[in-house]
This record gives sequence, structure tokens and C-alpha cells, in this order.
Amino acid sequence: MENFSFYVPTTIHFGKGQIENLSSSIKQFGGSKVLLAYGGGSIKKNGIYDAVTNELKKADIDFVDCDGIKPNPPVSDVRKGIQIYRENSCDFILAVGGGSTIDAAKAIAAGVCYDGDVMDLMAGGHGEINAAAPLASVLTMAGTGSELDMGGVITGEKNHKKHTIMHPFLYPKFSILDPTYTFSVPEKHSMAGCFDALDHLLECYFVAGSETTDVQNMMNEGVMRSIIKNAPKVLANPEDYDARANIMWASSMALAGFQFVAGKKGSKWPMHGMGHELSSLYDMTHGVTLALIAPSYLAYTLEKAPQYTWLFANFARNVFGVSEADDATAAKLGIGKVKEFADRINMPKNLKEAGVEESKLEYLAEKATEWGSLTALCEINKDDTLEIFRRAFN
Amino acid sequence: MENFSFYVPTTIHFGKGQIENLSSSIKQFGGSKVLLAYGGGSIKKNGIYDAVTNELKKADIDFVDCDGIKPNPPVSDVRKGIQIYRENSCDFILAVGGGSTIDAAKAIAAGVCYDGDVMDLMAGGHGEINAAAPLASVLTMAGTGSELDMGGVITGEKNHKKHTIMHPFLYPKFSILDPTYTFSVPEKHSMAGCFDALDHLLECYFVAGSETTDVQNMMNEGVMRSIIKNAPKVLANPEDYDARANIMWASSMALAGFQFVAGKKGSKWPMHGMGHELSSLYDMTHGVTLALIAPSYLAYTLEKAPQYTWLFANFARNVFGVSEADDATAAKLGIGKVKEFADRINMPKNLKEAGVEESKLEYLAEKATEWGSLTALCEINKDDTLEIFRRAFN
Repeated sequence: MENFSFYVPTTIHFGKGQIENLSSSIKQFGGSKVLLAYGGGSIKKNGIYDAVTNELKKADIDFVDCDGIKPNPPVSDVRKGIQIYRENSCDFILAVGGGSTIDAAKAIAAGVCYDGDVMDLMAGGHGEINAAAPLASVLTMAGTGSELDMGGVITGEKNHKKHTIMHPFLYPKFSILDPTYTFSVPEKHSMAGCFDALDHLLECYFVAGSETTDVQNMMNEGVMRSIIKNAPKVLANPEDYDARANIMWASSMALAGFQFVAGKKGSKWPMHGMGHELSSLYDMTHGVTLALIAPSYLAYTLEKAPQYTWLFANFARNVFGVSEADDATAAKLGIGKVKEFADRINMPKNLKEAGVEESKLEYLAEKATEWGSLTALCEINKDDTLEIFRRAFN
Repeated sequence: MENFSFYVPTTIHFGKGQIENLSSSIKQFGGSKVLLAYGGGSIKKNGIYDAVTNELKKADIDFVDCDGIKPNPPVSDVRKGIQIYRENSCDFILAVGGGSTIDAAKAIAAGVCYDGDVMDLMAGGHGEINAAAPLASVLTMAGTGSELDMGGVITGEKNHKKHTIMHPFLYPKFSILDPTYTFSVPEKHSMAGCFDALDHLLECYFVAGSETTDVQNMMNEGVMRSIIKNAPKVLANPEDYDARANIMWASSMALAGFQFVAGKKGSKWPMHGMGHELSSLYDMTHGVTLALIAPSYLAYTLEKAPQYTWLFANFARNVFGVSEADDATAAKLGIGKVKEFADRINMPKNLKEAGVEESKLEYLAEKATEWGSLTALCEINKDDTLEIFRRAFN
């Protein structure tokens, strides 16, 4: 097992009615003037905006709205948030939404403590995060895990490239996870969130060094199983509280659980690398891009790294209950089950059906690898990436 | 799923050589004069004492020894620690040891910030923990999970009763987990630690409300499997780094993972309740008492709460790979596997073999339930407890 560190300081308040902890929690972290960040306004229709602002008003906590944060949040939304925060002398950021809103809030939190442009603070940039405003989240959509991790993804202006911002200061101070807040999430986004969470687990599972990390592998398998069991229940009944609760908690555990990649040799998150390019070019929903890529990626990786056939076989048996005794056969059956799951939760069948142009595959592969190979279980260079896109095409 | 909160603020530095983070971490939390708490002196023989104190000396961090903390730590050791801390104007506590040392350090940390006697701060006492000295741990024995939780168990003077001290302030600020530090732990204590960790997971798994907590159940199953796989490897080769690493991380995850009991209806930790009485009366190693009780407890609970036969069957299949299709049969096979595991890692066969007197069973049952029934999956009252002790006797 490789050396690692573990640190997850966020407090979670999980369950129905946990919004009652909102104001006391904000005050605990010194918040008195809150930047309230949210998206396109669905929270005004489903009552969550009122629930949040009523709590703030009852506790005499002042707030200012930062609305309209878009999916795959563009840096312009982050800059707007920084400006509103400063103009109103805010001292706390509350994201009410899904991963896009929380990710944007993290970038705002870092940006308000930095003199230059916030893009400097993205991974590979020349700025440094030395402080961040305190932030918290009220989660309204499960999937990204941003409510319990320290990272965010922001879309830059140039080619809509996706950039990562990451620092321990960016852990939410607390997150409120009320499964009923996800009841009204549309089916497509609910299911894309389920696949996003599953994919975080796949990215952490199929990584070199997994030979020695039984605890991480076996916990990971458990969370994957819980998603595969509960996603169809959410599909069948969007107001199934326990199914929504399991998906919500699984999503948090999937990414907060950086214990799942801990002790391995490190991963460049190849499926996310490819998926981000699809989102950039076609503004596709993040989880949908992952569902499109995962089966081809896994099958290609099994071919390129046959020394890990045992890992794919473990996956098939422990996650999907495949009973096949032969490792090579079991491995393939397991990958087939991933595709079956994607189909079952109504993800598009292939890139073509999702509207991707075949002529763009070369460009997508180039962009996905412009900062280097996407290595996890084995190296995935530009040619490998292109082949994976091709297999996923139709 | 029931409502719950989740909060685990401890930083873990995991792996070989992580002691290099000791001094900078102490300084990060303002430590300049450290109370160095440890046990009977094994750390002086195996070199860990020198490794720790060399790091402190290099960084000009002053320290004072608080040695001789005993297993099942008596409150007298805690009081001694409080006195040394105060007399030397310490500002940080470093526990170097296993669960007993860390538990004692937690009670010292609370006690030095309280004017009355430290026993007031135990669960059910009339004192209140309003502050605690910062504490950290260097773990030398895996099992209790005290390195990543907020509780400790202290033996009182009256009847050697075990008392719990618990507060979020008592989370270690950081814990250093170097698997090589456990290489020299004697076989009996290594294996008892493995069963202790497994039992934490059993206590969280067999709890009412598990019908709705798939994520928690399935993660729990994964950690159990990792213990069952790796304990025999440690037994075969005490210097198997990866096996020691998996047992160490599984033990931390087993208890820090209060996510495993989160969302359920609450548990009185019945096996621990019974085991503590055995430790009190016979000064038996904690993990050994659990191995003696678990099979009888599980079998008895299955009889008394047959509506949870499905949970026992899940356990059998997902933890031990039992392939039996009938739930009732699978359930019993799973319990048999727990006993087989205890035997395989050389735990004593029964209470009689462990030196317990049959005439004391009634007394043990009475003491174990003196504060009420030990409820988890179902109520376990005094008569139930006695029956479980009797079945475990021979």
C-alpha cells in the first residue's frame, strides 16, 4: 500500500428537516452576511429557496443573492460571484444547488481572498490559494460529491476548457443533505447524477496499486452496489425517500471517500478527462458523458492492461454478483453489466445518439490529452483516447 | 433512513515513515510542551520511543513522559496524567500506543480543562466537557479505532466498571499510522485487535433500521471482508506490510466510520457491553472477550429477532461468500463462519477455556445490564444476556 493522507473536515447534517441546523451552523463559522449562490431558479419553484431564506431571516442573518450559476459553471459566473461578495462585504458563502453551484462557490471562496484573476488559482496556474472564505452547501442534487470534497471544476473561456480548483480550504464547513430536496430533480439529471457517483468509484477502483488496497477496494465495491441497487428505485419512484437517501449518501461517500484512491499509485481520472471534453464542446450533462465513455474505456483498459484481469473479475463478482469462475470471462461480463446499468437508467446508447459528430473525435482526443496521458490502470495516450471515443461512437 | 450527522475532523498520515510529519503537525496545533503518554515500555524496546522523541528534539519541542498506562486503563492512570500535564504546564498530549493509551489520553485531555474529578465527565456523570487539550496519536497497535474517533473507555474504581468518555473535542487532531510500528505486536494482541475491529463492524451492522441503509451496510461488509482476508496473513507473517496496512486502515475505518451506524435506530453495543464486564472481572484483553461472545450473541439474536433473518443471510453471502439460497440456512452458516474465523486466529474456544467461572455468569449478566437493556437489533435484557453468556461458556 502506498502512503497517503486522509482529511475530511466537513460536517454533514443528513436527513429530512436538517435545514433547521442552517443558521446556527453559519453563525458557528462567523457568518453574518451570506452570499447565497444558486442556479437557474428551480429552487424558487420547489420551495427550497424559501426554506433557506426563512431560516436566515429568522436568525437575522443578512444575505445577498448570486443567482443564475450555470451547469458546467463558466468562470464568468465565478467572477460575478466574487464581485457581488466584495461589493456587499459578505463573510460567508452558501451554495444551494448541485455540483455546479457548489463548485462555483468554491472558486468564489478562493477568488475573494486573492488579488489577481481567479483563473490563476486553477490547477497548473501561477497563483496560490493561501486563504478562502468559509463556505457551506445545501445540496439539491446528488451525484458530484462536491458537498464533501475540496475540489471544483470550472469552465474557462478559451475553448471552454474545464479547469480544476482544489485546496483543503475549499472543503465546505458543513453540508445539509435532505433527500426530500432531490425529489423534484428531473429524471435525466437524477440518473446522470447516479452515473457520476458510480464513475467516481470506477475511477478510484481501476487504478494501479489496487493489488494491496483491500480495504479501499472492498468499501468501494459496497458503495457501487448501493448505487446500482437504488438508482432504479429512484427511477421507478422519484419520491422514494430511502432510495433517494441512499443515492445521496453514496454520492457523498464516493468522492469524500478519497480513501478509495488512497494507497494506490494515483489516477488522472481518464473517464472524467474525456467526459469534460464532451461537456465543453457539446455542453452535455457531466454524468451522461461518463455513461457514454465508461463501458468502452473499461473494455479497452482490460485489453491494454491484462495483468489486471483479476481486478475486473473481482469487480464483476463483488459488485454485480457475476458467478463465472473464469477470470477473463467474468471480467468481460462485469463490463457488460456497466453498459446494462447505463441502459437501464436511460442514458443515451452511444455518442452518435447523444449528438456527437464523428468528425470531432480526433479533436476531442487531442484536447483530452493536451496536458498529458490519462493514466490510471495503465497509460491512456492520445491514440488510446481516440480508440475509446471511436468504440463509444456507435 | 434515520437522520444523522457526520463529522470526522482528524487528519491521518498513513504509511511507512510518516513520523516525519509529527513535529510540524504538533506545531500546527500550537503544541510546544507535550505530555507524552504511553504504556508499559514496549515502545522503548522496539525503537518507536526513540523515533518519536528524536523528532520532537529535532524540532525543539519540549516533552514530559507519562508512562505506564495500563490496558483497560484505570482512572488512576488518567488522574496521574492530568497531574503531570498541569505540573509541567503542557499544552499538547501525544499518545504513543494502542487503544488503551489513546483512550487514557482523551480522558486526560478533557480532565485538564475541568475543575472537578475526571469521572464526572464520563457518560452519565454530572460534569460537562466544555473544552479539551489538543491531542494526537502515534498508533502502535491496530484494532480499537481510537485513533480516528471521539470516544474512550476508562475503568473506574468501583467494581472496575468500564465508563465511556465521548465528545467531538476528543477527536485526535492527527494520527500517525505506520504499519511497520505494528510488526512487533505479539500474536495474541494482533489477533485480538483484528477481532475488535470486526466486532465494531458487527455492532454497527446488526442494528434495527438496517432495512434502509444500503450504503452503510455495504461499506461495512467491505471492511469486514478486508479484515477476514488479512488477519490470517498477519498471523502467518507478522511483517507482511500490506496485510498489516489493511488491518490498520480497516480498524480505523471500522470505528471512524460511524457512518456505518448512521441512519439506523441506534445501538447499545451489546457485545461490547458484555465484553467490558469480562475485562473488568478478569482483566481479559478486550478483543478476546468479543471473540468469546460474538458467535453466541449473533445466534441468540437471530432466534429472538427472526424478522432480521434476511440481514444475517446478507451478511453470510456478502462477507463470507456463502452461496446457500435459503435465507434461514445461510443466516446460520454465516454465524458459523464468525466462529470459524475466531478459531482460525487462535482466540480461546469458550469462556471456560478462557478461565471464566460458571458461577460468575449471573453476576456478569447483571452488571452488563445494570444501566438498562443492551438493545441493537432487538432488546437484550438481563435474562437474554445470561443466556448468551451460558451459550458461550462451553
